[in-house]
Amino acid sequence: MKHRLRIAAVAFPLLALVAASPPARPLTPSEIVAQAPDSAWAAFPARDLLVIDLDSGSRVVIALAPAFAPVHVENIRALARSGWFDGITINRVQDNYVTQWGDATEKKALPAGIVVSPPAEYARPLAGLGFRAMGYRDAYAAETGHAGGWPVAREGALAWLPHCYGMVGVGRNLAPDTGTGAELYAVIGHGPRHLDRNIATVGRVLAGIEALTALPRGTEALGFYKEGAPRSAILRARIAADMPASERPAFEVMRSDAPQFAAWVKARANRKDDFFIRPAGALDICNALPPVRAVKG
Amino acid sequence: MKHRLRIAAVAFPLLALVAASPPARPLTPSEIVAQAPDSAWAAFPARDLLVIDLDSGSRVVIALAPAFAPVHVENIRALARSGWFDGITINRVQDNYVTQWGDATEKKALPAGIVVSPPAEYARPLAGLGFRAMGYRDAYAAETGHAGGWPVAREGALAWLPHCYGMVGVGRNLAPDTGTGAELYAVIGHGPRHLDRNIATVGRVLAGIEALTALPRGTEALGFYKEGAPRSAILRARIAADMPASERPAFEVMRSDAPQFAAWVKARANRKDDFFIRPAGALDICNALPPVRAVKG
Repeated sequence: MKHRLRIAAVAFPLLALVAASPPARPLTPSEIVAQAPDSAWAAFPARDLLVIDLDSGSRVVIALAPAFAPVHVENIRALARSGWFDGITINRVQDNYVTQWGDATEKKALPAGIVVSPPAEYARPLAGLGFRAMGYRDAYAAETGHAGGWPVAREGALAWLPHCYGMVGVGRNLAPDTGTGAELYAVIGHGPRHLDRNIATVGRVLAGIEALTALPRGTEALGFYKEGAPRSAILRARIAADMPASERPAFEVMRSDAPQFAAWVKARANRKDDFFIRPAGALDICNALPPVRAVKG
Repeated sequence: MKHRLRIAAVAFPLLALVAASPPARPLTPSEIVAQAPDSAWAAFPARDLLVIDLDSGSRVVIALAPAFAPVHVENIRALARSGWFDGITINRVQDNYVTQWGDATEKKALPAGIVVSPPAEYARPLAGLGFRAMGYRDAYAAETGHAGGWPVAREGALAWLPHCYGMVGVGRNLAPDTGTGAELYAVIGHGPRHLDRNIATVGRVLAGIEALTALPRGTEALGFYKEGAPRSAILRARIAADMPASERPAFEVMRSDAPQFAAWVKARANRKDDFFIRPAGALDICNALPPVRAVKG
């Protein structure tokens, strides 16, 4: 992996030179993404983007998944709109596990209109999702694939968003409590897939993940920060649709039904760059999170 | 996951109270580890511990795996003994991928005695390892399990150390170059298992992983730091066996053939804590890295 920087830097000019002739080798996953036409991309609706500004100056943008956890997502929208998230802190950074934020005092009253005991939105019917199986083995689910720009795991007639790096879930107490959405976490390590179907997964970090992953780890049990230890705070969290149009961030995801996406999956599973000797012929769903790009809002 | 801190804090005193009666519920993975007798643990040999002191004051301890990459490991020992690692820097931190360190100038001469072109130690014969299969499905390999305290993936008669979070590999140029061991990386994201059998994996970070994972991400392509950007340096790297006995760190790993280890794997795959509703009945090898503990040297 020493000199891949140089390899990448050289690849594009070379390609440009030979653009008129057929490619001499299969495209790399990055090249497939770079060359995908606009028709291969779909915008995240502005009402599904949670925009979190941290006091560090960093911005984290999370795509919410109402198709998978509609009640929790509606709660999160209401929490954002009421300003409830503003001023809460990142309280837990457990290495190879999660970064979690919420009200450290646990005394902040929830705004009116919140569903205090949401249903257990841990899985949903597979039907109606437009699920496309990858066709590769998974350690945890009967099948994995994609739908509507989301990574999806399936077992029988049920489907859910797997706990992959960068996925966002809803902190909760012991069951049957399911959490309200007031306390969220992002996965920052190897996918803790044993949490699948035990917690509501509600979204995915699209941008600013470094602001959650490069933080000092908490020193207390389970990676919580010691009481009184310095920690990042959320300056404000808004739904993009509520922001002035000129300020809204906007993102697109590669469509799960685009031929370029199928080509990307295949190329990810069968890496043939000059670097690779033995293509895996396999692909973990957590290594197949759909490509995302920032666009002009 | 909101209140697991409290749950954990309560669990041990309760257990102490009922120690004389049979347990009312299955032990959690952590309880199995805490209660495992000394016979369930094996020491890492001091000659296999690479002790890296960073200029930040943090210490990273890596267990080397001569059973899997003997030539590369011997090179790494020689590099440490000659002081070659001292003064080199962390040059790449790519989110959800790797932290990589080496000689940024790429001009530092290798010490005498280094094998400049080691063989491709990307896999080894399964025979002789004492491999114990976990019995769970894997996305990439025919089978996964453990041997001698290491996570192991298997295909046919070959076995290798999988690219899991915290595993350490040898940076290299394009094949057939295999790297010398002078440039190493640690995995800091979801296991990039497509690298398996394409690179020599030589060890595992036992302690101080936060010093590699909580670093600012590099802003250049592939997570390299921009030229001139501040970066951590290695003050000195030593093999524990070469340190004064009184200063040596020492670590033990749970033995792959201990009954407590089998119980731990089973409990990890079938979490029945009060928090869990639906045990996975499955376990990814990267979520089954053998428990490690620091001991008095």
